[in-house]
Amino acid sequence: MKENAVPEAVIKRLPRYYRYLDELLQKNINRISSGKLSELLGFTASQIRQDLNCFGGFGQQGYGYNVEMLYKKIGAILGLDCGYKAIIIGAGYLGHALACYGGFKKRGFSVIGIFDINSEIIGTEIGDLTVSDYSDIDSFIDEKRPDIAMLTVPKTAANDIAVHLTDKGIKALWNFAYADLSLPDDVAVENVHLSDSLMNLSYRLTDMKTKGETK
Amino acid sequence: MKENAVPEAVIKRLPRYYRYLDELLQKNINRISSGKLSELLGFTASQIRQDLNCFGGFGQQGYGYNVEMLYKKIGAILGLDCGYKAIIIGAGYLGHALACYGGFKKRGFSVIGIFDINSEIIGTEIGDLTVSDYSDIDSFIDEKRPDIAMLTVPKTAANDIAVHLTDKGIKALWNFAYADLSLPDDVAVENVHLSDSLMNLSYRLTDMKTKGETK
Repeated sequence: MKENAVPEAVIKRLPRYYRYLDELLQKNINRISSGKLSELLGFTASQIRQDLNCFGGFGQQGYGYNVEMLYKKIGAILGLDCGYKAIIIGAGYLGHALACYGGFKKRGFSVIGIFDINSEIIGTEIGDLTVSDYSDIDSFIDEKRPDIAMLTVPKTAANDIAVHLTDKGIKALWNFAYADLSLPDDVAVENVHLSDSLMNLSYRLTDMKTKGETK
Repeated sequence: MKENAVPEAVIKRLPRYYRYLDELLQKNINRISSGKLSELLGFTASQIRQDLNCFGGFGQQGYGYNVEMLYKKIGAILGLDCGYKAIIIGAGYLGHALACYGGFKKRGFSVIGIFDINSEIIGTEIGDLTVSDYSDIDSFIDEKRPDIAMLTVPKTAANDIAVHLTDKGIKALWNFAYADLSLPDDVAVENVHLSDSLMNLSYRLTDMKTKGETK
């Protein structure tokens, strides 16, 4: 494995490969030329070759790609065969949405707990989970060893919670709070800053209008 | 304005500037050196100069930046002073979360309607909105002229809905459905593919573990 050398941009593209390969499999398509794959993904064929070469290539000259093999290999690179266990901190609407989303399970993640500090929410059921009291988080982590924490908490609370969870040994945080977390380098953090995304959309809408008007 | 030339990467960074400048204003900090701003944002001072030069610069030699002015200018570049009106299609948990999130309003966006096809949800209240029947969407758009549609619908329905809304004149889609939309070039689309984000986190966690083991 040459993972040390894989550029960030390649990593960012892998979930897209995975998603489209999944769709091909669902249509019982088991073999695809690099040209067709390129058309589907919107990446050039040479881009695809370069991307997959980072992991040792997987194509065969004159054959193209075996969809199922490629799907499994990319899944393994993404760690989807590791059976990662996740907990959700914050059982508001967003926490609910994450707890109820079936797509994570399909990709090998299981949500094993959801926590809140609000006594009105603690004890309520969300799918097959019951909202637990956040004050019980330490014993839960000690016992169940979750790998990933999904944070849907107010921004003012996010950093303290993140520090606590990582002190307890959680090494991956999926952060929906609108704050940048200050954590050790050996913790993986993926931020989903929804407001930033909406502002990007707003920029592009505004830019398009400006250009339309000056045409 | 030299907006035609602004690289994508600069645009992606602007919401981050905006967020940190907002925090400075809340702390009554009205002036900041490029060095301090760099420390705060985690961008180099020369990066900041380059970014802001895309829009004509805003700093003053020996003074630094006027926080409020920079905040307002970046807000204007992002279109946050345009008073964009948004509708939400899909009143599930994620639609709820978006409807209830106060941060959008603070950034100048107003959510003026939320729609669903589920008769059990139609008519229920979410904050100060009432869930409307999606079959009434055309007359709503004709009357209220929303600028942005936030799509929290199943992936199988997403493209048809997106095509319909853009045919009706909506030029910006914030797409949470796990599908890539096929739309005309004059429509701005920002995808939030949560599963992709979780897979990126999973990759990094797995990569860290692999490296840790091989040390």
